[in-house]
Amino acid sequence: MRELTVDLGARSYPIYIGEGILNDIGTLFEKHGIGKGSPLLVVTDDHVAEHFLEPVVSLLRTAGYTTASHVVASGEKSKSLKVLEDVVTTALQAGLDRKSTVIALGGGVVGDLAGFVAASYMRGVRFVQIPTTILAHDSSVGGKVAVNHPLAKNIIGAFHQPEMVLYDTATLRTLPDRDVRSGLSEMIKHGLIWDAEFTAWCEDNADKLVGLDPEALQYGLYMGCRVKAAVVSQDERENDLRAILNLGHTIGHALEAVAGYNELLHGEAIAIGMVGAAKLSVRMGNPEHVYTVTKRIFKKFGLPTAIPAHMDTDAIMSAMMHDKKFSESKIVYIVPTDIGKVEINKNVSADWVRDIVDQLKQED
Amino acid sequence: MRELTVDLGARSYPIYIGEGILNDIGTLFEKHGIGKGSPLLVVTDDHVAEHFLEPVVSLLRTAGYTTASHVVASGEKSKSLKVLEDVVTTALQAGLDRKSTVIALGGGVVGDLAGFVAASYMRGVRFVQIPTTILAHDSSVGGKVAVNHPLAKNIIGAFHQPEMVLYDTATLRTLPDRDVRSGLSEMIKHGLIWDAEFTAWCEDNADKLVGLDPEALQYGLYMGCRVKAAVVSQDERENDLRAILNLGHTIGHALEAVAGYNELLHGEAIAIGMVGAAKLSVRMGNPEHVYTVTKRIFKKFGLPTAIPAHMDTDAIMSAMMHDKKFSESKIVYIVPTDIGKVEINKNVSADWVRDIVDQLKQED
Ligand SMILES: NC(=O)c1ccc[n+]([C@@H]2O[C@H](COP(=O)([O-])OP(=O)(O)OC[C@H]3O[C@@H](n4cnc5c(N)ncnc54)[C@H](O)[C@@H]3O)[C@@H](O)[C@H]2O)c1
Ligand SMILES: NC(=O)c1ccc[n+]([C@@H]2O[C@H](COP(=O)([O-])OP(=O)(O)OC[C@H]3O[C@@H](n4cnc5c(N)ncnc54)[C@H](O)[C@@H]3O)[C@@H](O)[C@H]2O)c1
Ligand SMILES: [Zn+2]
Ligand SMILES: [Zn+2]
Repeated sequence: MRELTVDLGARSYPIYIGEGILNDIGTLFEKHGIGKGSPLLVVTDDHVAEHFLEPVVSLLRTAGYTTASHVVASGEKSKSLKVLEDVVTTALQAGLDRKSTVIALGGGVVGDLAGFVAASYMRGVRFVQIPTTILAHDSSVGGKVAVNHPLAKNIIGAFHQPEMVLYDTATLRTLPDRDVRSGLSEMIKHGLIWDAEFTAWCEDNADKLVGLDPEALQYGLYMGCRVKAAVVSQDERENDLRAILNLGHTIGHALEAVAGYNELLHGEAIAIGMVGAAKLSVRMGNPEHVYTVTKRIFKKFGLPTAIPAHMDTDAIMSAMMHDKKFSESKIVYIVPTDIGKVEINKNVSADWVRDIVDQLKQED
Repeated sequence: MRELTVDLGARSYPIYIGEGILNDIGTLFEKHGIGKGSPLLVVTDDHVAEHFLEPVVSLLRTAGYTTASHVVASGEKSKSLKVLEDVVTTALQAGLDRKSTVIALGGGVVGDLAGFVAASYMRGVRFVQIPTTILAHDSSVGGKVAVNHPLAKNIIGAFHQPEMVLYDTATLRTLPDRDVRSGLSEMIKHGLIWDAEFTAWCEDNADKLVGLDPEALQYGLYMGCRVKAAVVSQDERENDLRAILNLGHTIGHALEAVAGYNELLHGEAIAIGMVGAAKLSVRMGNPEHVYTVTKRIFKKFGLPTAIPAHMDTDAIMSAMMHDKKFSESKIVYIVPTDIGKVEINKNVSADWVRDIVDQLKQED
């Protein structure tokens, strides 16, 4: 088992990564002072529930915890205020009180939703993340939780740090291949913004990672979480540095908003966005290899690098204008300056971004 | 103008109380560093909008602020996730960004709703309270913001402190008489939990307060806010002391949950609750005058002191079991030990509370 700390003073917490560590959930909960006097609520989705809900609930019950559960439909649509209200119904009916803990068992959707439930139920209860996707190595670390609004993703939320993150790589074996690759896109992002060596390692180990090789997976997740934790520790509430985690996300979020249901997964959308950011980088005078290497890596992982031709540029641009990375109407853009290095550029013109979007529709 | 500080370290903020001070809103906003580069959003309800929305918006525009507004229907029903989503729609359409400020112009309903919008929009933006009811001297101080769930009041929310509270007593003249009395109920509560002298002053000045005498009103609001601020400063996140602010609220919230729409206002429900708490106090061996004085005061303010006979005891008790002041299934009850003094009693039996509820149905 690998262990890592997200350093946030009084709100610091550990990330445990290992094969089969869910079996130790009772011990880990006790170690972190999660009391048995108040009920727990496990929130998960129907895909994850099929494989892991029963085992997790019975491990918790065996350890002496009163445990309720709530299963939402799999998919981004569950990150809504309506579903939040439904989860709270279950919480109330199960008698959750201020000393209760909400557990997110699932991918980023479940983590963001259950995290916002934990942040807002009775104005805040404790929260544990049990990520079951690769993408969730990103979403489960850092305390950003939210639901979507019909007009904008992740626009209603909070900063609410978990008590711990419990990452059992054994849960990843049931993940559909497309979600594996989508999740690896965020892992690559962590390399691209912070660590050229790790980026190269990702490229060299693409086949092992896509094939869910246990050793490669644990190392990659550990390194990805480490970058995320380092950034978050320095800027918990996204005042400055944390913005670099949004590499590829300005275009990526807009694509997700405009794309039809399931047309683009999050990791796929930001892969395209990162290629866009690399193109912008070169146009701004940075070396050509920023673009060629970035694109080559995503190709190697079988991730998309072009905007589907049928998507409307105007619609993409208008979705972008609602994106929260725009402050005082200027476009804040994360631009790679080299592999493993980015800058926060607050002066990118909307026209340039539009050009990039148009070019990305022509990309192979 | 009277001024008061809520002492919360980096989150400290001032409360300004005075006749006509809304005219200085531009100056006060500038003084507190509210920038002009990002739009403001004024949230209000249709009753308040009629009198004050246009003046406030034009004062802000004259001062150089881009200002949007959102008007909700008056009443508790607007404290819902649905209405929250609607306010966020307006916020997005008006282009609110992370540097924007949300302004609550209204009573406790608007304050709680707009406050939760401010707490959760983009994971938190700035917030200013402009209370226009007497009750809001309570709700606008302390940072508790929330919306309701169909099964429980205030169950989805946050702690989110405002930048300032701007209390213009001139806005109170249009308040319906019933809301005036309901608001004074929280003012009396602040006396009952903290300050026997102020309680006596309230009783002596009942006619002036109900008649909205400017001097009496300013002093009463100032003192009420002072008690609230003192308690909140010592316990921002309701870990212990802050619970005393819930005097009368355990029964009060249950009555609100069970009563039909508009049958009981918040201040009316807690007046009954405070009489109940005083009865419980005497049953526990505290002096008889705790009950007689408490009841006499509420009578003098024309507030209800009995539970409407048609209300079902079982329904009231079951609503109480969902109330968040129950921790680990034990009943936490705020019990007055004398006028101006309360204790937090964590061991009140549900049977005793049921007896009190039954007795309150017989009260005159
Ligand atoms: N909070 C943050 O900091 C942050 C960061 C990045 C992304 N996100 C959010 O994360 C979400 C995307 O996360 P995601 O890709 O994990 O999506 P997801 O939670 O929807 O999971 C992807 C799919 O895999 C299924 N699944 C999950 N675990 C499985 C398993 N072990 N076996 C079989 N199927 C499984 C799910 O049911 C779903 O169909 C987005 O909503 C995004 O906004 C949040
Ligand atoms: N956050 C807290 O700490 C806290 C504390 C106490 C109460 N509350 C909440 O406050 C709410 C009750 O507050 P309230 O009594 O102010 O209710 P409210 O906001 O509904 O106002 C009462 C009525 O007066 C009207 N009104 C408001 N100002 C007016 C004015 N100046 N002129 C004419 N009409 C006016 C409103 O439209 C409404 O019809 C409840 O939802 C309660 O849960 C919150
Ligand atoms: Zn992402
Ligand atoms: Zn109250």
